[in-house]
Amino acid sequence: MARIVPSLSLFSLGLAAAFAVAAEETPAYRTVNEVIAASAPADWRSPDPEHTLYLELPAGRVVIELAPWLAPKHDANIRALVREGYFDGLAILRSQDNYVVQWGDPDADDAAKARPFKTAKARLAGEFTVPWRDDMAFTRIPDDDGYAAVVGVSNGFWVGRDPKSREIWMAHCYGTVGVARGNETDSGNGAQLYVVTGHAPRHLDRNITLVGRVLSGIERLSTMPRGAPPMGFYETAEQRTPIKAMRVAADVPEAERSALEVLRTDTATFADIVEAKRNRRDPWTKLPSGHIELCNVPLPVRAVPTTADQP
Amino acid sequence: MARIVPSLSLFSLGLAAAFAVAAEETPAYRTVNEVIAASAPADWRSPDPEHTLYLELPAGRVVIELAPWLAPKHDANIRALVREGYFDGLAILRSQDNYVVQWGDPDADDAAKARPFKTAKARLAGEFTVPWRDDMAFTRIPDDDGYAAVVGVSNGFWVGRDPKSREIWMAHCYGTVGVARGNETDSGNGAQLYVVTGHAPRHLDRNITLVGRVLSGIERLSTMPRGAPPMGFYETAEQRTPIKAMRVAADVPEAERSALEVLRTDTATFADIVEAKRNRRDPWTKLPSGHIELCNVPLPVRAVPTTADQP
Repeated sequence: MARIVPSLSLFSLGLAAAFAVAAEETPAYRTVNEVIAASAPADWRSPDPEHTLYLELPAGRVVIELAPWLAPKHDANIRALVREGYFDGLAILRSQDNYVVQWGDPDADDAAKARPFKTAKARLAGEFTVPWRDDMAFTRIPDDDGYAAVVGVSNGFWVGRDPKSREIWMAHCYGTVGVARGNETDSGNGAQLYVVTGHAPRHLDRNITLVGRVLSGIERLSTMPRGAPPMGFYETAEQRTPIKAMRVAADVPEAERSALEVLRTDTATFADIVEAKRNRRDPWTKLPSGHIELCNVPLPVRAVPTTADQP
Repeated sequence: MARIVPSLSLFSLGLAAAFAVAAEETPAYRTVNEVIAASAPADWRSPDPEHTLYLELPAGRVVIELAPWLAPKHDANIRALVREGYFDGLAILRSQDNYVVQWGDPDADDAAKARPFKTAKARLAGEFTVPWRDDMAFTRIPDDDGYAAVVGVSNGFWVGRDPKSREIWMAHCYGTVGVARGNETDSGNGAQLYVVTGHAPRHLDRNITLVGRVLSGIERLSTMPRGAPPMGFYETAEQRTPIKAMRVAADVPEAERSALEVLRTDTATFADIVEAKRNRRDPWTKLPSGHIELCNVPLPVRAVPTTADQP
């Protein structure tokens, strides 16, 4: 008898449902995996290659989708940096357990050695929140949240909203990508980026600019050896994983792109997934939680099905 | 100018405060690190060696503190298994990104090869919750939580409580240790254990028995290569990290024990830490969150200060 802690892997769909249900039971509920298995092709979208980044590491690729409507100036500046080749040959600077992995120029603090910018801006006003616009996508999550008046998902990104101030902002969840900054709110520019690799540090929300999230390859970051306490910065060049290159997906020949699809979050399928996770009903679960915390909301990603996968 | 995402490392105390404050400012607030730096020796306790486990891996030791008042039968059974040598030579079975690492007998499902129990019980009624007793320690966290009526900390462990049903239970946070089970609620026995190494899967609360949490060495688990999707089980013996031994700290010669102290959570120092994190006031933070989610509550651990550390 297998003893397990069941779960859903976001990066491994198209698999058999985790829990087999005998056909004669005709269950009134579906698991998250069953909802995904029954999704329609139209429930999925391809990320825009102009706003998708590839972080190329020796171990392979990390794919990042940007959310330009949530941080338009940083989206543009980061793509400018990437297209300058700014990141190529730089390094992973930091891995702090249960927190973040961060990358950029190891010599950023040494004016004589720091890599210069070409077209990108060195200072950008923080986009910690942006004004809500009625043309923005927003799918509300029904449960209360302590860090935001309202929480939900905007076209595939976890977000908070404040209806009074009419602001919206991306939330710090596992896999979100942010722009490190100094104490000044305009000291971030995208030349140092971080990915959340631990429990969601939601207290950082609205204090720093978030630009996107990892769609695949996060395990290449999350398993990196941790750096020196307390903040996990590596102390020697040998400890740092080199960055082979960062590229905008649109600049990569189509045959070399990662063929991924993201579940649309304005669909009935997504609503069913949220409800299936809010109230898990399967042979293992004894007490459905009746609640879902924002960062536990699944945002499924799959490899593009090939003809061979079609029934 | 260093661009950072500031943080507190729980495993690296006794260090300079993350943010230097000029003496003339005489701040009305303190950071978490400053509160810890000002703590008294009486604010710290030594974990009970009879309820502390060492998971000895090739890369080093993982120290686990058990919470016997929250799962007494499992605490006893796991210590019986450890003292039988049950885990010695077994292996890490599973590492699933943003979820758990799990260990036990790779042949558990093969009756002919499975390692037998000697004195430990093969089936134990689940201790998903236990009855609240007025002699239990409980420090309430002031903020609302979607998964429990009341949340807080019981002598160093994150817990939920239901005043109506008078139940208390450990919550799934980063580093908590649980007892894998099959579909039957009495199918767990402690022979397969897991540690949360990702965002808190709180929907598992009250569905499975939690027994303790990792005090140090969690990075030895959290950086392990991920196993095969969807659940992260390793598929070959070569992929599995061997377990050299598991030991009860009390059975280890004192000179070989890990000298750790845990902050007492019934102290003013702990209350100050929670408040310092609920409302961060430092030169970096622009908008204190005014809220703390249970699994973001710090439970500081430190190496026992030696004479050389005394002022």
